[in-house]
Amino acid sequence: MASQLANAIRFLSADAVQKANSGHPGAPMGMAEMAEVLWTKFLNHNPANPKFYNRDRFVLSNGHASMLIYSLLHLTGYNVSIDDLKNFRQLHSKTPGHPEYGYTDGVETTTGPLGQGIANAVGMALAEKILAAEFNKDGLNIVDHHTYVFMGDGCMMEGVAQEACSLAGTLGLGKLVVLYDDNNISIDGKVDGWFTENVPMRFEAMGWHVVPNVNGHDTAAIQTAIEAAKAETGKPSLICCKTLIGKGAANKEGSHKTHGAPLGEDEIEATRKHLGWNYGAFEIPQEIYDAWSAKEKGAKLEAEWNALFAQYQAKFPGEAAEFVRRMDKKLPENFDTYVQTALKEVCAKAEKIATRKASQNSIEILAKVLPEFVGGSADLTPSNLTDWSDSKTVTRENGGNYISYGVREFGMGAIMNGMSLHGGVRPFGATFLMFSEYERNALRMAALMKTNPIFVFTHDSIGLGEDGPTHQPVEQTATLRLIPNMDVWRPCDTAESLVAWAEAVKAADRPSTLIFSRQNLPFVPRSGEQLENIKRGGYVVSAADKAQAVIIATGSEVELALNAQKALAEQGIAVNVVSMPSTNVFDRQDAAYKAAVLPDGLPRVAVEAGVSDGWYKYVGLQGKVVGLDRFGESAPAEELFKAFGFTVENVAAAVKAVL
Amino acid sequence: MASQLANAIRFLSADAVQKANSGHPGAPMGMAEMAEVLWTKFLNHNPANPKFYNRDRFVLSNGHASMLIYSLLHLTGYNVSIDDLKNFRQLHSKTPGHPEYGYTDGVETTTGPLGQGIANAVGMALAEKILAAEFNKDGLNIVDHHTYVFMGDGCMMEGVAQEACSLAGTLGLGKLVVLYDDNNISIDGKVDGWFTENVPMRFEAMGWHVVPNVNGHDTAAIQTAIEAAKAETGKPSLICCKTLIGKGAANKEGSHKTHGAPLGEDEIEATRKHLGWNYGAFEIPQEIYDAWSAKEKGAKLEAEWNALFAQYQAKFPGEAAEFVRRMDKKLPENFDTYVQTALKEVCAKAEKIATRKASQNSIEILAKVLPEFVGGSADLTPSNLTDWSDSKTVTRENGGNYISYGVREFGMGAIMNGMSLHGGVRPFGATFLMFSEYERNALRMAALMKTNPIFVFTHDSIGLGEDGPTHQPVEQTATLRLIPNMDVWRPCDTAESLVAWAEAVKAADRPSTLIFSRQNLPFVPRSGEQLENIKRGGYVVSAADKAQAVIIATGSEVELALNAQKALAEQGIAVNVVSMPSTNVFDRQDAAYKAAVLPDGLPRVAVEAGVSDGWYKYVGLQGKVVGLDRFGESAPAEELFKAFGFTVENVAAAVKAVL
Repeated sequence: MASQLANAIRFLSADAVQKANSGHPGAPMGMAEMAEVLWTKFLNHNPANPKFYNRDRFVLSNGHASMLIYSLLHLTGYNVSIDDLKNFRQLHSKTPGHPEYGYTDGVETTTGPLGQGIANAVGMALAEKILAAEFNKDGLNIVDHHTYVFMGDGCMMEGVAQEACSLAGTLGLGKLVVLYDDNNISIDGKVDGWFTENVPMRFEAMGWHVVPNVNGHDTAAIQTAIEAAKAETGKPSLICCKTLIGKGAANKEGSHKTHGAPLGEDEIEATRKHLGWNYGAFEIPQEIYDAWSAKEKGAKLEAEWNALFAQYQAKFPGEAAEFVRRMDKKLPENFDTYVQTALKEVCAKAEKIATRKASQNSIEILAKVLPEFVGGSADLTPSNLTDWSDSKTVTRENGGNYISYGVREFGMGAIMNGMSLHGGVRPFGATFLMFSEYERNALRMAALMKTNPIFVFTHDSIGLGEDGPTHQPVEQTATLRLIPNMDVWRPCDTAESLVAWAEAVKAADRPSTLIFSRQNLPFVPRSGEQLENIKRGGYVVSAADKAQAVIIATGSEVELALNAQKALAEQGIAVNVVSMPSTNVFDRQDAAYKAAVLPDGLPRVAVEAGVSDGWYKYVGLQGKVVGLDRFGESAPAEELFKAFGFTVENVAAAVKAVL
Repeated sequence: MASQLANAIRFLSADAVQKANSGHPGAPMGMAEMAEVLWTKFLNHNPANPKFYNRDRFVLSNGHASMLIYSLLHLTGYNVSIDDLKNFRQLHSKTPGHPEYGYTDGVETTTGPLGQGIANAVGMALAEKILAAEFNKDGLNIVDHHTYVFMGDGCMMEGVAQEACSLAGTLGLGKLVVLYDDNNISIDGKVDGWFTENVPMRFEAMGWHVVPNVNGHDTAAIQTAIEAAKAETGKPSLICCKTLIGKGAANKEGSHKTHGAPLGEDEIEATRKHLGWNYGAFEIPQEIYDAWSAKEKGAKLEAEWNALFAQYQAKFPGEAAEFVRRMDKKLPENFDTYVQTALKEVCAKAEKIATRKASQNSIEILAKVLPEFVGGSADLTPSNLTDWSDSKTVTRENGGNYISYGVREFGMGAIMNGMSLHGGVRPFGATFLMFSEYERNALRMAALMKTNPIFVFTHDSIGLGEDGPTHQPVEQTATLRLIPNMDVWRPCDTAESLVAWAEAVKAADRPSTLIFSRQNLPFVPRSGEQLENIKRGGYVVSAADKAQAVIIATGSEVELALNAQKALAEQGIAVNVVSMPSTNVFDRQDAAYKAAVLPDGLPRVAVEAGVSDGWYKYVGLQGKVVGLDRFGESAPAEELFKAFGFTVENVAAAVKAVL
């Protein structure tokens, strides 16, 4: 019953896992027919141009089956060779243990952390919907592709997958087609003891089109199911493929032991006989390569699209240029000049407002030149202040540029990553800083993938007041700073807020986290040079003659530091105040700049309404940190700052202690 | 239609929110009838003894409606006075902005972060099931209570709630009864744009008993529904109460504006008239107090249980004593002696094994004297090694002491918190360290609530090898250390692993995080004093004569530090090696001890296969950190340690650089 095309995947995978002597699963044999049908009969893509704008996206949400996608990429003609397959799971190979975005042509997103792949795919389908609504013209559908997903039981159990699938149902993402590898097995064994949901019923409850009970090893049945899924354009589709783990293996078929270890040479050999596969390890006969190859079809596909786009370009040159700019992830020309002008206006206003309001003002400014912005909030729009005058919420019926994610923080983060990877849109999304914890691994995945969504968090400290310790971030800013390749910004006023936003927009190969206050913060006057230095992450915001010490502060504590500076000056003690909105960016500056901001030998005090540990990197063992190493309390904000020692007296005392 | 009993909640809430001039929602008016029926007709509890072992548990999962529970506690006779209500959201009051465990009698768990309350409740119901199976005898059901939950649309959307509810369905938690406040409103407005699930169908798909379409303002209908829910003992029940937000408000009924702000004096006054409530602010007539009071009923309830327990005690004195010990969260007598003896045996064996295996050995040792252990894993039992010879998985039909949580990390954490709060069991649960990120806010909630589950994480660094950067923790250990009131342990061998486990068990008022390696680590010989000092979090594991520097290391890097010490000794450079399995615990030691471990003036180098920032707190600006400030790669572990500079040469060079 197993087809020879599908068997090519089985043996390439089993051989590679065997050679690496490491793999999880041993070989993705159960999904071989699903893969064969989707990739040979449906997937519109071009191996010669893996970034072809209008390609179908494919996401292997159960990313531990990475050899499945590497086999498919090799067989269909991508730049993945047999030698690459032989290098499975080796250092700097194109074939790492999980599919890693940026390592391998044709891998659309990094998967492995379960549940996030399907959520990324929801983001891709959502980006397609938004771009199609914005750019397509009568008869000229330049944006028109499907997003296909493989997912397993593991993804099904993860909350993040549920969050994303629920929103996909509400938004009617009809071009999202998910093939569920229903093999009833996860690492602990048969799932009956911990996963007994009626999956088809659940997806129907979420507004999906469900094709139940498909034999996942019957290529004709799979084909019919995918056709039915494509025919339903108003709802996302779930195809439930009943499969057998290790399908085709001579003796281990159906055993969860194939999930975590190589099959073994003997079993592979026996399986060759069992399936009538008369080829050696890593050997694929030409006729099978020919049957798999997507090169010719891909070239034709792209040529057709190019012809369509040429017509589009002729009729709508402005839109065409804009589409290409956005898909190529380029900023508008003169973006920097535009920001500089706006920044001057912001400084002229010198407003005392909450930085979350300053953030909204920044969005308003930037959205005028960045139509690629797709904002959103996890049900906190009036608190996060992430909407703007031209924002329009995406609905089931219409496109737009704002997503009401509902109370789904992790889903939001993973969907943003998917939109960002799709391209053509620039997602940002918000919640309270505390709930960065719910979506934390999505932030890490963005950083790992070097993609650049903008994560906005408001209500950044005990300054949120009465909602109390469950909602008062204490350690969150510090922990976010520790994610490699993530820039965290905590601005102190309107000027720093706009600069943070602009720098986040300009960051091409990393995500940014922007952290804003609930409460009003005063505008800090600056020289032109100081204004220019904000983007360096840390700078002397107020210098003193013959400074004896440096106070470093961020966000709402910059005002406190400046007040302490004044109080100390009255006592004859001169200190510089350094505003450090982004430690991550400051750390990347050259040694000379850093030494100018934090001169050797000047004792230092750091002030931030959060955990203190991270600041010893800047103040050293001889320095002091005025921080908060405990949970907050429910009370009005002013009372809390006082109760927890964020007072001029306390900061001044810390400075005197280090002198 | 609104009953005067329910109106008492409405006005107490509205008055308190008005006085605080802060509240979210303005008043929980929509849930007033649900609360009235549940608390006056069903809830078995005793205000005079809020910790009565066999009380029903009540969880307000939509914790922002905190004035609902404070009103109920006041009205039914708990130690919550009118003055306490007047102090709503003020510093150190019993009535903080969200219900905080430990602040207010009768608050069973801290809620506010959405989705976790219902998951805590699943844990409570699960603890009840486990304890009932273990302790109840024919006709002597000393453990026999319900867990009731209020949840809103916000909780419904959160993935963590789905994870927990799915497992509750699989395990058939028939004594869990959830009242869903279906008001169709969340902060961004009417939920139609982002939440369109067929909730009854979804819960049926998850194996729940659903009572749909209940008028949430009809007390008789609610009563009938709860009776039906109690009658279904094989499945958890969801009662879908259709409610109107702000129900009863004169002009604001049905508006989502009642969700985020006080009603206003005028509206409250108009509502008094509208509802015929002829009492002043914070005024409740005696007959309404009398109707609400649960004091008499509660005393009777407890007296009856005491009589039952006396019978039980007479027949089963050993079990009775054990039940009381466990419900009172006391360790067995001689626990310390037992651990000391076991520790000597572990040292005598001197095994070179992975610390995850050392962890399993520790569980095996401790489980012999801690029948309250309830272990588990998020579908990684064979990798986490969290099962033991007497562990028995809880099923729908049977109790046990091990939970197969499925691939539901956040659900697991929140369920563990609920079990821990219930008492009588001591939960621990595991996943890969990377996926601590999925459950992160549950860890924080445990720390905030001062409850003590044990969070186990394995595969703690690039040492996991081929699975690659999605699975290789780099920043996770560092970020976990920053959670206030959380003890993080990263042991280096079998001895430190057992001590870490024992200290985690002994921690009464904080959770612990135990972090273990995938790969084998050698046993480190120690003196008796060194062995004794492990529990201080950091100690000199290898001292040198006239040490010129100190190398600090944790976990798998202790071996590297000891090897570097040897290499340096051969070059005539004497260094001490400090093993620091828990920075959190070390930080709590007295200054003299800390100075003995890290003497003033001795330059320091820290070595840990993770982000470096946190270590500057110990090594200062003059010290060095051999760390990993980037993501990992997919490759065999040995290659990765070498590629990323975790070599004797590199550590030795760092030491020479600080001399």
